[in-house]
Amino acid sequence: MSIFELRESNLRGYSRIYPTVFDKAINAKQIDENGKEYLDFFSGAGVLNFGHNNPRMTSAIIDYIQGNGVLHSLDMSTTIKRQFMEKFEEVVLKPRDMPHRMQFVGPTGTNAVEAAMKLARRVTGRQEIVAFHHGFHGMTLGSLAATANSYFRGAAGVPLNHVRHQPFGCITRCHGCHSECGLNTLKQLADQYNDSSSGIDKPAAFLVEVIQAEGGVNIADPAWLSALQDLAREVGALLIIDDIQAGMGRTGSFFSFDDYDVDPDIVCLAKGLGGVGTPIAMNLVKPEHDDHWNPGEHTGTFRGQSLSFVAGGVALDYFTDPALMDQVKRYHDIMMQHLSPMHSLPSVQVRGKGMMIGIDIGDGDKAKEVVKQCFEHGLLLGACGTGGRVIKLIPPLTIEEDNLHEGMGIVVSVLANVLEAV
Amino acid sequence: MSIFELRESNLRGYSRIYPTVFDKAINAKQIDENGKEYLDFFSGAGVLNFGHNNPRMTSAIIDYIQGNGVLHSLDMSTTIKRQFMEKFEEVVLKPRDMPHRMQFVGPTGTNAVEAAMKLARRVTGRQEIVAFHHGFHGMTLGSLAATANSYFRGAAGVPLNHVRHQPFGCITRCHGCHSECGLNTLKQLADQYNDSSSGIDKPAAFLVEVIQAEGGVNIADPAWLSALQDLAREVGALLIIDDIQAGMGRTGSFFSFDDYDVDPDIVCLAKGLGGVGTPIAMNLVKPEHDDHWNPGEHTGTFRGQSLSFVAGGVALDYFTDPALMDQVKRYHDIMMQHLSPMHSLPSVQVRGKGMMIGIDIGDGDKAKEVVKQCFEHGLLLGACGTGGRVIKLIPPLTIEEDNLHEGMGIVVSVLANVLEAV
Amino acid sequence: MSIFELRESNLRGYSRIYPTVFDKAINAKQIDENGKEYLDFFSGAGVLNFGHNNPRMTSAIIDYIQGNGVLHSLDMSTTIKRQFMEKFEEVVLKPRDMPHRMQFVGPTGTNAVEAAMKLARRVTGRQEIVAFHHGFHGMTLGSLAATANSYFRGAAGVPLNHVRHQPFGCITRCHGCHSECGLNTLKQLADQYNDSSSGIDKPAAFLVEVIQAEGGVNIADPAWLSALQDLAREVGALLIIDDIQAGMGRTGSFFSFDDYDVDPDIVCLAKGLGGVGTPIAMNLVKPEHDDHWNPGEHTGTFRGQSLSFVAGGVALDYFTDPALMDQVKRYHDIMMQHLSPMHSLPSVQVRGKGMMIGIDIGDGDKAKEVVKQCFEHGLLLGACGTGGRVIKLIPPLTIEEDNLHEGMGIVVSVLANVLEAV
Amino acid sequence: MSIFELRESNLRGYSRIYPTVFDKAINAKQIDENGKEYLDFFSGAGVLNFGHNNPRMTSAIIDYIQGNGVLHSLDMSTTIKRQFMEKFEEVVLKPRDMPHRMQFVGPTGTNAVEAAMKLARRVTGRQEIVAFHHGFHGMTLGSLAATANSYFRGAAGVPLNHVRHQPFGCITRCHGCHSECGLNTLKQLADQYNDSSSGIDKPAAFLVEVIQAEGGVNIADPAWLSALQDLAREVGALLIIDDIQAGMGRTGSFFSFDDYDVDPDIVCLAKGLGGVGTPIAMNLVKPEHDDHWNPGEHTGTFRGQSLSFVAGGVALDYFTDPALMDQVKRYHDIMMQHLSPMHSLPSVQVRGKGMMIGIDIGDGDKAKEVVKQCFEHGLLLGACGTGGRVIKLIPPLTIEEDNLHEGMGIVVSVLANVLEAV
Repeated sequence: MSIFELRESNLRGYSRIYPTVFDKAINAKQIDENGKEYLDFFSGAGVLNFGHNNPRMTSAIIDYIQGNGVLHSLDMSTTIKRQFMEKFEEVVLKPRDMPHRMQFVGPTGTNAVEAAMKLARRVTGRQEIVAFHHGFHGMTLGSLAATANSYFRGAAGVPLNHVRHQPFGCITRCHGCHSECGLNTLKQLADQYNDSSSGIDKPAAFLVEVIQAEGGVNIADPAWLSALQDLAREVGALLIIDDIQAGMGRTGSFFSFDDYDVDPDIVCLAKGLGGVGTPIAMNLVKPEHDDHWNPGEHTGTFRGQSLSFVAGGVALDYFTDPALMDQVKRYHDIMMQHLSPMHSLPSVQVRGKGMMIGIDIGDGDKAKEVVKQCFEHGLLLGACGTGGRVIKLIPPLTIEEDNLHEGMGIVVSVLANVLEAV
Repeated sequence: MSIFELRESNLRGYSRIYPTVFDKAINAKQIDENGKEYLDFFSGAGVLNFGHNNPRMTSAIIDYIQGNGVLHSLDMSTTIKRQFMEKFEEVVLKPRDMPHRMQFVGPTGTNAVEAAMKLARRVTGRQEIVAFHHGFHGMTLGSLAATANSYFRGAAGVPLNHVRHQPFGCITRCHGCHSECGLNTLKQLADQYNDSSSGIDKPAAFLVEVIQAEGGVNIADPAWLSALQDLAREVGALLIIDDIQAGMGRTGSFFSFDDYDVDPDIVCLAKGLGGVGTPIAMNLVKPEHDDHWNPGEHTGTFRGQSLSFVAGGVALDYFTDPALMDQVKRYHDIMMQHLSPMHSLPSVQVRGKGMMIGIDIGDGDKAKEVVKQCFEHGLLLGACGTGGRVIKLIPPLTIEEDNLHEGMGIVVSVLANVLEAV
Repeated sequence: MSIFELRESNLRGYSRIYPTVFDKAINAKQIDENGKEYLDFFSGAGVLNFGHNNPRMTSAIIDYIQGNGVLHSLDMSTTIKRQFMEKFEEVVLKPRDMPHRMQFVGPTGTNAVEAAMKLARRVTGRQEIVAFHHGFHGMTLGSLAATANSYFRGAAGVPLNHVRHQPFGCITRCHGCHSECGLNTLKQLADQYNDSSSGIDKPAAFLVEVIQAEGGVNIADPAWLSALQDLAREVGALLIIDDIQAGMGRTGSFFSFDDYDVDPDIVCLAKGLGGVGTPIAMNLVKPEHDDHWNPGEHTGTFRGQSLSFVAGGVALDYFTDPALMDQVKRYHDIMMQHLSPMHSLPSVQVRGKGMMIGIDIGDGDKAKEVVKQCFEHGLLLGACGTGGRVIKLIPPLTIEEDNLHEGMGIVVSVLANVLEAV
Repeated sequence: MSIFELRESNLRGYSRIYPTVFDKAINAKQIDENGKEYLDFFSGAGVLNFGHNNPRMTSAIIDYIQGNGVLHSLDMSTTIKRQFMEKFEEVVLKPRDMPHRMQFVGPTGTNAVEAAMKLARRVTGRQEIVAFHHGFHGMTLGSLAATANSYFRGAAGVPLNHVRHQPFGCITRCHGCHSECGLNTLKQLADQYNDSSSGIDKPAAFLVEVIQAEGGVNIADPAWLSALQDLAREVGALLIIDDIQAGMGRTGSFFSFDDYDVDPDIVCLAKGLGGVGTPIAMNLVKPEHDDHWNPGEHTGTFRGQSLSFVAGGVALDYFTDPALMDQVKRYHDIMMQHLSPMHSLPSVQVRGKGMMIGIDIGDGDKAKEVVKQCFEHGLLLGACGTGGRVIKLIPPLTIEEDNLHEGMGIVVSVLANVLEAV
């Protein structure tokens, strides 16, 4: 028995899905200890937008370390943090006229969400947060209450209170959904808030992903998201967008909501923000809300991760030159073209934006089989959505074009094989 | 105005305490952008046991990166993770006959604590966790309920339920405390559990630090901790030791409880475990409890941090050779000798173990002044304890001896200055 | 100042609405200490279905007391309790083939509801109860969580958890409502329960009034109520009908749901059950659920109220002879005829069943004025619904016909006066 | 099978303990349908302080009913309520200089406690209530959280939050207890409140019985109760005394705390307050706290129970003449004398005040056997305390002296029989 079987927790998951031992990785490839190469359409759960060991980033990191740059600083001021913040302001905030401040938290998405929930509660003096069906926001007790999946919720061991779960647009799986349906649901919610005898309190915030990644690659209807923001404003609640997985270029623009008509009060970022997979998490918070924080009220040891500032700073360069974002759009079309045969299958739905594409095959067991066979054919990908029935394709944005074609070829042939076998 | 003032959240804390911009760091020194050197008796809040930019670690990291080692892997198996796990088993677990499994979680201490709380609740089917006055376990909603400090608790915005806070040994500040007092408190608690009409439910776990670091450098009485474990066994609860700040050699041995007669069911580790300050967190869990986890029930993107495995693996070498741990004991004596004049001051209490020493001056405002003057004299340190009245000294274990003397000299002269000024 | 002003709590309400001191009462009249007579269209908040001091009841009570019958017995067996139970079985349960057991609780509606919630949670092992907008179920912490009105909820002082509030049929005020709308809402709820990633747990019970009395005289659509029961069965939840105000003949039959196609698992009764206004509360519980109770798990001192058994037993006689229930239907028509001019007013909606009729004038301030002027004209009635905008008419079922005409005349003329005045 | 077996809920308790059907009752006797007489040392769980069918009360009730007095009035003003309030002010409040207002609530003790908890939370803006081990305060969700017994708590089905349970004086069973021990516990609690890092919030109120009746006839130490009041004042919390079972003369004075040095902010009354067993509950509330109520925020249908005002008014006459209270003291001595042989038994402890006496035999099964044999010998009494190990003697205060002797004779001989049998 290996050390993993002998000594790693029963909790481990991916090592069962990908039963090999990885050793090296470069851009869209992971190589195991036997030298077998795998195409990576999983990107470390959406972290590695810029590829494994992106050479511009690793070289910057090595330089930084060799210069004895401060590696760990909590929330002290450092030159590398200043450099990151200034670049982020220049590249991301200023062009969008975003007045938001940067709040660094413990370097996990769940910590960003927890901090956002705290602040919304503080600002409004209210307790309830509205989250959405199929939403995923983390595993710690506060964010877990906002996470919809019952498998994760079942591990809490205590009641998960103070969050109300609402439909993400239409209530049902999105065959034949239309804006109207989602808008009606929000109107009903508005009625409930305006009725002092509904038994429902006005919320502190609405916490929403623009694209639900773990939830099954569900894309918010633009009219619905605007109406949600209107409702938030109307009832005095904050709008929090969790852009942890869909942000940082994944959908063809820095934020997943850049082509939506929204102005979120808080944006939660993590995953791809650190460039190469070193941890970082950051909330963008409007000053008028941020002023409600007292110094050090929400802390965390690993808030000041210099390597993430280094590599994350390099990552920001991809947003000053249109090349990569243009490539994302082109690659989107390539992926969709490969998947076009799927459209004729009634039980399959393909949806996605930029380089996050979901293939909903409506059956978790089959999806598991797809993942397994892809692995055997040298392709790493994962399943998401209710019961794990959606195949999620999130290759690095920087993948070589031939690798993209090759990977898509495997996906399509395995899908054909598995779906036919029925 | 700097970018920090313009664009960083009002939440920031340490940048106010240390009003400069740090640039480089090596072992026990941080250097700001003006070239001013500071002795570091703070170690990034107890992370940098092996010094800033420990050269053995940075060189291993650079090698790893240059070899395109996998940087980020969630809980996939990797060669570097195997290497870390095998070394951890060899160096830490086997010599202690610890059957525990390693459970990697989101790379923050709070995530480790949340996972431990979930598991204890799952194993026992109970909800209440007992935590202790002055305990610090994190900022996310589950661990925050176990954190005692009202300043942090006040930011939750919702009630913090399902945790019961009990005295850490004696109820009161430890002048004239004695074992008897703490033992009596546990006997009373046992009575409450055994009385079906006490209104108090049997707990899922006792969650305790052996040395409360943030809580004011309070050291558990050995007899009390043993009795606590007995109580846990008696009522069918788990004993969870949070060794996040006090572990990894800080007290002169790998675990802070190595010289206690305890056998914890779960040990939470983070901070120093990654060697140079890159994030990692891990729980050690007994197999019979670990088996209650279902795969992937508690997840986290950044669970597989290879740089932390690399540097953390190097750190483990310090525990195969007695040199560093011997040095910790010698340095402890040096620090105590410097502080011996304090013993004559009735309002001051010095306590500590290994290289975590607290100087309780009983007054948070004065402690703040001490920190400020030390900073001005080129020494970084922090305050802890109720109202921040305890000066905490936690230099890197690897500090040069003359730096240690120099720093202690500053501490003592500033203390004299501030305390006299009263 | 009177003793009421000097020494009664600021909490008092009705004594402000009816600023006089009542002395005597007989059937539909209350007489104040100055001899002024008031017609009573309020019936002690729906308690006095059979009139004040119903002579058949008072005479039976006097006989019982003169014979030294046990007055107070907790849940000991008594001859008078047996008599009541046997009659209840004969008159109410057997004709409907109801297998339910009688569970006597603390003699208040809220206690009945609390007991029902406990049992549903016990039976299902689930925590969440679904209650409905505008529902009213009591003031103690468990039932208050199910009560919708924010004025009452605001007095709790702690979060009201473990209850989910849903639309009572259609979400909005019932102009132009139709079955379809309410049924869709239930379908959506079913979808949420069937989706393991909705974030919503299956409930222990649905707790519903067939006619929401305090909520504004809202009548459940029969198709909706049947569908609600189907949903309950489908998800393994109990259906609890709170018939505390609408039951005991108020709507023209013993239960308010007698002409609905429902088979509730638990029915909560109180108010009119005791005949003359002495307290009693009782749940009807199906044996297969009732078996989950352990003896004495839910207790209450005043469970065995003999005077309520005496007068309540007399009250049951009204249900063995069709006369009174026929009269209720006839009186309903008389009341509606008086109110027919209201139909031409666009802002007014009249709704009701049997002798519970609500006049929704859409404005709480005007409704308050109506109540005030009616009082001045010698008529007692109350307002209900969101913001108190619905005038509720619930005279004793036994009212003399000329008193009914007289009272309705006052209502209509005051309404005309107040609504015109705008 | 009888109707009780066929149709009464499995929840029923006392009908199993006293397996007969009672028919009539007069003073300290209950007579079953076969004419068998039972001496009543149970008094309807402490309700019937003035005996069954007290003739002064029943005659006043009959007069009132025959005069068509208002029977049910919610919180309208009535002549009979005025009469009761004026007499209560005269007899109870004025002689004690109590400025308290009378707040009538739903006519159960639990409703009084729930209202008190709400008000304390409102007044202080805090959530936590401190209640005590072995305390009993009711079965609805708010008061149940304050009730200590795990059998009752286990029926809640949801977590019981926002109440902290503390030792009632000494932590342990009261052999060899002393004031010091209880006072130390309060000092520790004060330390916890004064330590901002204890993790424990300052409470809204302390909710305490002066004699824990259901909890096992535990009598508060006067020094402890005074210190508790001091602590309440110091931390800005209210002191709520639940005098529901021990009040109304049971201990030889109107309030159980008349000979204590306390000035409670709220006193909860119910049970004996209505004289003959018709329901009523009332809180006494200091005006400065009462002013925090908004009208009608806490309601209840059966708040205005005229028969309870009638009989309760008669009951107040017993407190204008010293005869009955003197008799209580004399009867206490008689009871104690009968029990004096118990003192020699090491496993038995007799404790009590006035006419509430508990015989703690340390074993619930034996206590059950005592109750059973007493019943067979024609004596009704009940067990209380943890596991039901305390025999509680609470005969009507008005019992005939020979009945008292006779009943005590049965108690002592059955006790001897059961205890010897071991």
